[in-house]
Amino acid sequence: MNPENKKEISELRQDPVGRDWVIISTGRAKRPGEYKSSTSPGQETPIEICPFEDPKRHGNEVVKSFSRKGESDWFVQVVNNKFPIAHGNACHLEEKRGPYSVQTQASGYHEVVITRDHRKSLAQMSVDEVEIVVGAYKSRYLDLEVKDCAKYILIFHNHGRDAGATISHPHSQILAIPYIPADVRRSLEGSANYHSERKRCVHCDILEWELKEKKRIIFENENFAALVPYVPKFSYEIRIIPKKHQPYFEEDGNTRDLAEALKVSLAKIFKGLNNVAYNFFIHTPPSDRNNEYDYYHWHMEINPRVNTWGGFELGTGGDVISVDPDEAAEYLRGIKI
Amino acid sequence: MNPENKKEISELRQDPVGRDWVIISTGRAKRPGEYKSSTSPGQETPIEICPFEDPKRHGNEVVKSFSRKGESDWFVQVVNNKFPIAHGNACHLEEKRGPYSVQTQASGYHEVVITRDHRKSLAQMSVDEVEIVVGAYKSRYLDLEVKDCAKYILIFHNHGRDAGATISHPHSQILAIPYIPADVRRSLEGSANYHSERKRCVHCDILEWELKEKKRIIFENENFAALVPYVPKFSYEIRIIPKKHQPYFEEDGNTRDLAEALKVSLAKIFKGLNNVAYNFFIHTPPSDRNNEYDYYHWHMEINPRVNTWGGFELGTGGDVISVDPDEAAEYLRGIKI
Repeated sequence: MNPENKKEISELRQDPVGRDWVIISTGRAKRPGEYKSSTSPGQETPIEICPFEDPKRHGNEVVKSFSRKGESDWFVQVVNNKFPIAHGNACHLEEKRGPYSVQTQASGYHEVVITRDHRKSLAQMSVDEVEIVVGAYKSRYLDLEVKDCAKYILIFHNHGRDAGATISHPHSQILAIPYIPADVRRSLEGSANYHSERKRCVHCDILEWELKEKKRIIFENENFAALVPYVPKFSYEIRIIPKKHQPYFEEDGNTRDLAEALKVSLAKIFKGLNNVAYNFFIHTPPSDRNNEYDYYHWHMEINPRVNTWGGFELGTGGDVISVDPDEAAEYLRGIKI
Repeated sequence: MNPENKKEISELRQDPVGRDWVIISTGRAKRPGEYKSSTSPGQETPIEICPFEDPKRHGNEVVKSFSRKGESDWFVQVVNNKFPIAHGNACHLEEKRGPYSVQTQASGYHEVVITRDHRKSLAQMSVDEVEIVVGAYKSRYLDLEVKDCAKYILIFHNHGRDAGATISHPHSQILAIPYIPADVRRSLEGSANYHSERKRCVHCDILEWELKEKKRIIFENENFAALVPYVPKFSYEIRIIPKKHQPYFEEDGNTRDLAEALKVSLAKIFKGLNNVAYNFFIHTPPSDRNNEYDYYHWHMEINPRVNTWGGFELGTGGDVISVDPDEAAEYLRGIKI
């Protein structure tokens, strides 16, 4: 990442899933250490008023608790979001208003997955601890997928105010919603088209190529690879992909290896990118299904928020990638955890 | 916008263009005056070091200048961006790399449209002045559309650091790129599908309904309506739509009325939303065409940046709209200019 020897890239790469073109233009990136830390002044919720320090006492409805092995106290507590984006089960009430279709209730479930320590982010936890978090995701997924109105279940995490976290105490969110989100639909459609043309899974092909090329892999274990995609959506994006074809997150039994890949990836961002804000989420098929998404390949996307989106990004629907994915991967791979 | 009498909305609305579902969930919005001003401390480029104060002296290559009527000094100066996202005309060099398609040069043109005054944003200009800016957009569009590699021309503006403006001196950007951006392609496809199903233009139908409903119109003149869309992409989004069916921005002769609609819309954000950061851009068909986009209806989208995108928005591809579009429109309509 030495600007003097840096090879500048200015090219267009097409995402084989959604077929969107992405611009890679590396002339104006900051150095990795220059990003604003998510713990810079004014970013932290004071512990005295933190609603997640003792969720129950703050009036949060606890859905489920998880403990460390051999302990009785909670380490992960899942609560109902007090300000849910979606709630209730009066789904499928669709009507027409002018040229628009409307579902008159944003039905569903919105839960918060809180971890015990006010300041210990996932990047700083042990693999054992992250495994409890990932286990909680899966446990809630399995409970929610049978609910009415749960057409899609989105699991995501916001770290830092610039990534949309309004409370700094580490927490993830699980949303069960009655529609398939736009980006998920596009990811499914792109994968389906690729599969019907070539009878192969697009993510398997991507992974096979990346494992051969090696240079964008930042971490791997038996069951997962963490890599900077050749066509990222964000600079320094990390994608965690199961090595064996597995359409569905909740059917993937390799929780321990997933926890390790996630912990290592986040720790590399924490150490290497000055604890910049990031989001991650899981893309997996809709939950109301009969195996018709077997062509899909679930994965996790981690997006460091190193750029502010402007009119170009909003007008085109994509980031300008200002860091060469090869260099981003080389840099992150080199960060020792 | 009195929180006490506020009617809370929690529903899903489908965009008839791209067919994406958008969540409207109004439980947690701030009051309009609470947004961070784009002129809050640390947001302004000091005038002494501003590269746009005297673009030529700062080594900017001037492409074209425009003056106020009867004046010889420049009021708008178009320069080549010193750090272009796209440049050169070695387009169409497409090759395969693993499962990816690559254009080995992000070819095109990237220009900056600078206005004279360091602190006078478009919202504060006269209609005469904004007309010069809009005229400059059109003039550059017409010059650029004949260039090789100019498959799509995006005109956009970033106001405030939270909207991606790294230099506070007011400026817009024009990008000629060798591909059709993802969001534009979706807007085109959605419009084409609607047209082939019903033999009508989707934006004409939207506008007809909105002009009948009236409540989301914030301003209109003979040739344009400015409205808060029933299915916005952002809270407080304003869309400016030509009243008569007109597929192509550069063929729209009503520059004066467009300038007025734009000036009034931006002034309402400036006064009503505490000069919050915003982006606007023009969606018009690709420039390499033979009238095959006659079903389309060009328009301008203005997006105040009142929310920070988090994992939900990145994972789904859409904002959660936290302000009822009817109330947003009522509020903005009421702001006197």
